[in-house]
Amino acid sequence: DLPLTVIAGPCQLETLDHALMIAKTMLGACQAAGAGYVFKASYDKANRTSLKGRRGIGMEEGLRMLEEVRNRFGCPVLTDIHDIDQARAAGAVVDIIQIPAFLSRQTDLLLAAGETGAVVNIKKGQFLAPWDMPNVADKVASTGNDRILLTERGASFGYNTLVADMRSLPIMARTGWPIIMDATHSVQQPGGQGGSSGGQREFAPVMARAAASIGVAGVFIETHQDPDNAPSDGPNMVYLDQMPALVASLMRFDELAKSDPVMG
Amino acid sequence: DLPLTVIAGPCQLETLDHALMIAKTMLGACQAAGAGYVFKASYDKANRTSLKGRRGIGMEEGLRMLEEVRNRFGCPVLTDIHDIDQARAAGAVVDIIQIPAFLSRQTDLLLAAGETGAVVNIKKGQFLAPWDMPNVADKVASTGNDRILLTERGASFGYNTLVADMRSLPIMARTGWPIIMDATHSVQQPGGQGGSSGGQREFAPVMARAAASIGVAGVFIETHQDPDNAPSDGPNMVYLDQMPALVASLMRFDELAKSDPVMG
Amino acid sequence: DLPLTVIAGPCQLETLDHALMIAKTMLGACQAAGAGYVFKASYDKANRTSLKGRRGIGMEEGLRMLEEVRNRFGCPVLTDIHDIDQARAAGAVVDIIQIPAFLSRQTDLLLAAGETGAVVNIKKGQFLAPWDMPNVADKVASTGNDRILLTERGASFGYNTLVADMRSLPIMARTGWPIIMDATHSVQQPGGQGGSSGGQREFAPVMARAAASIGVAGVFIETHQDPDNAPSDGPNMVYLDQMPALVASLMRFDELAKSDPVMG
Amino acid sequence: DLPLTVIAGPCQLETLDHALMIAKTMLGACQAAGAGYVFKASYDKANRTSLKGRRGIGMEEGLRMLEEVRNRFGCPVLTDIHDIDQARAAGAVVDIIQIPAFLSRQTDLLLAAGETGAVVNIKKGQFLAPWDMPNVADKVASTGNDRILLTERGASFGYNTLVADMRSLPIMARTGWPIIMDATHSVQQPGGQGGSSGGQREFAPVMARAAASIGVAGVFIETHQDPDNAPSDGPNMVYLDQMPALVASLMRFDELAKSDPVMG
Repeated sequence: DLPLTVIAGPCQLETLDHALMIAKTMLGACQAAGAGYVFKASYDKANRTSLKGRRGIGMEEGLRMLEEVRNRFGCPVLTDIHDIDQARAAGAVVDIIQIPAFLSRQTDLLLAAGETGAVVNIKKGQFLAPWDMPNVADKVASTGNDRILLTERGASFGYNTLVADMRSLPIMARTGWPIIMDATHSVQQPGGQGGSSGGQREFAPVMARAAASIGVAGVFIETHQDPDNAPSDGPNMVYLDQMPALVASLMRFDELAKSDPVMG
Repeated sequence: DLPLTVIAGPCQLETLDHALMIAKTMLGACQAAGAGYVFKASYDKANRTSLKGRRGIGMEEGLRMLEEVRNRFGCPVLTDIHDIDQARAAGAVVDIIQIPAFLSRQTDLLLAAGETGAVVNIKKGQFLAPWDMPNVADKVASTGNDRILLTERGASFGYNTLVADMRSLPIMARTGWPIIMDATHSVQQPGGQGGSSGGQREFAPVMARAAASIGVAGVFIETHQDPDNAPSDGPNMVYLDQMPALVASLMRFDELAKSDPVMG
Repeated sequence: DLPLTVIAGPCQLETLDHALMIAKTMLGACQAAGAGYVFKASYDKANRTSLKGRRGIGMEEGLRMLEEVRNRFGCPVLTDIHDIDQARAAGAVVDIIQIPAFLSRQTDLLLAAGETGAVVNIKKGQFLAPWDMPNVADKVASTGNDRILLTERGASFGYNTLVADMRSLPIMARTGWPIIMDATHSVQQPGGQGGSSGGQREFAPVMARAAASIGVAGVFIETHQDPDNAPSDGPNMVYLDQMPALVASLMRFDELAKSDPVMG
Repeated sequence: DLPLTVIAGPCQLETLDHALMIAKTMLGACQAAGAGYVFKASYDKANRTSLKGRRGIGMEEGLRMLEEVRNRFGCPVLTDIHDIDQARAAGAVVDIIQIPAFLSRQTDLLLAAGETGAVVNIKKGQFLAPWDMPNVADKVASTGNDRILLTERGASFGYNTLVADMRSLPIMARTGWPIIMDATHSVQQPGGQGGSSGGQREFAPVMARAAASIGVAGVFIETHQDPDNAPSDGPNMVYLDQMPALVASLMRFDELAKSDPVMG
């Protein structure tokens, strides 16, 4: 089994300098710890709780920034798409196209993402069971694309709350696709602040560690140097300056987990 | 308060004759009982559990059928859209554009629907609280469109199960928009049959009656003359031949409820 | 089918005068509306959120008060028991012994209640499915006691929240036992105020009406002349002075429902 | 921080020989791995799904067996109690009295357990939030007993399903009391087999490892040499012959976790 991959970056793209700064910090942290690294950022937040939430810089400019991050550092880059038309443009630039959880049942979006030939990371819908995901992955696989990732990011648990069911990791792993744990969205409190989502950033390292210990292929962690002033998802993003220690810690659990498999 | 409106039709459009047959039966039943009637059918099931599920006849043909239903019977028609491009085409034909529950947080879709000027019926996401819906409705209202309907169709409750929280009706009613109870999807068991969703058709009349008694503006009921052989949502659709009695019964509760308001 | 029975009273017994005042008001309201009436009150709140919550006046004094209420007004009285030793004493006095929801799986308590020969009202645990209740009722029935009531009072829905699933009423009704809707506990927010439970009193009439429309045998409503100063469950109790109108309203829905059965 | 303690044994006591066999195997496994060991078994299953489930051998004989296990092997023993009268008798014999999850809000039982002076292990109710547990623990602490353990065993998640929220471990740890993860009950499917509970034994090691990695004080694992023929909880018990390897594995994660704390 390969060492843990860390998919990390800001919730949304802000400026090129900002993206480069975060990518550089994260890449350094991951290389130092022996982890794989994928830069993640969104060019559009298409499903904000309210209209007042900031949307992002847009696809065209966003894809240019992502390309620049990859050119500069050589690390793969990931972004999420929101409709079919974006698939081709994004697929031409990024290494990994991500399907947002709310859209994880939209057949045409899954097919369009698959057809790009990029890796497709599907976030499990908050309304789906882990055993629903093989049908979802099959939609992508039907295009002939066999580079699929499945991500746990929490299931609806009453109102404005998610719960991450650790059983979903081994259940989804039965598909054979690599499994990712989204440690920051699974501690989100959707809509929990009225006009925006709340979150419990302090538990993201707990979720990441639990998943690494179970032997996941990767963890997904949104990070920012100043989460409380980030344009979105501040309450659940991890402070950037805590990431190097977190990654190093996760790698120790990853190494132990992969020498002693508990999934499958 | 106006008498109850019944939004009813098959889950998906099959043939024009089939649509006309159902519309005629339902319109007759609603007129006999004094209820309003809106014909509902989908031209595309864009989020089937699995690729094997039948998608539908497509937008172009579907919109023609819906237009024909309206021309023939004079009743308003409703259909759901799945991406921005469909909004304009659908809005030119139907009276009510419906936003599917999974897509109820997609800002651009809500805006595009609002901009058509058609009535917009927003299904509450299975992952949303009733108090999250004012932010959702505001997205549509921001386009200047003030003809909005909010529909309860159940919230995620563990895996492969929904629960309809009756409190959501009065909570959503505080927005001032008319509230619809989707009596057939709220008894759906999403993904509950592995490759497709299950359902508990026998409880749809129970949910419809509870909602009518609380004084909702409308009920949404999918119906088919032979649900077990319908291309989608068979397990939760109500037999068409039971609809006249059901509508008549609901109208008795509606009349009583509206003479004695319990919401707001 | 018999007309609706209203089980109502304060969450806990305070003084004899208080119990008599509430019983008199409720009995008058029920007689005026043609409803059955059962006086309900607890002598001990054995599972308060915190130690600081007031427990109640104790079994001996409480049973004397309940007896006096019955003697004075001739209405049946109900109270809940918390261990086996209380069953016999309570059964000698009250008409209906109630099994609290948290204790609804405690076999010996169910057997002891059954053996008293009193009617046994079992509240469905917040952790139980409606289809789990036949096994629970069978424990009571195994004693030869065939006077059993089953009460819906909400199921756990995330943290500190309950949801009342209306499907549970027809599902439990398949047992053949009369079904009661607890309209005030199903809008409780357990532990929602830190040291005590919160509640949404404003929705109790909504839940009661929905259930009456479905045709339940009875509704359970805690009431107080001054809920905000009651020793327990204030946030979800209904104001006593609103009860006569509420009962009269429920009877109209009950009459309609029982002329047009939707359950079973 | 102390090394992990493993609380393990059969769901219910069968014979003395059986108890000794399991205790000997588990003690050997724990000593070999450097783990603490507590023998766990119940003398009465007081809340079986149905009357047909086997109850157990009874308190008197059960306590004698537990005493014999302790005398023979010198390991602490744990059992659960179901009413106040049992507290004193059990407290005179066992080292740890356990409060069942369904009874975790019963004030008098918590007080009676506290008053024995034994360690009290409180299982968090399936209907409780982790932040509700300080109030629960305070009931025990009010007796002057400051030897309290808090156990996560899953929260209600829809019907017949539990979910273990990993956040509850650090949240409950804020109380300062040692936290235990019940790895077998958290994968139980309550009532999931109609007349008895189902379970997903295959995920118990996953839950145990996740919790050990987070740094819990102990794990609780029910085990049996032949779970499928055990009188209760077979579907979620771990095979006894898999326990030595599981304990050894958990100790590696425990050691790593305690060298790198993530809670608090």
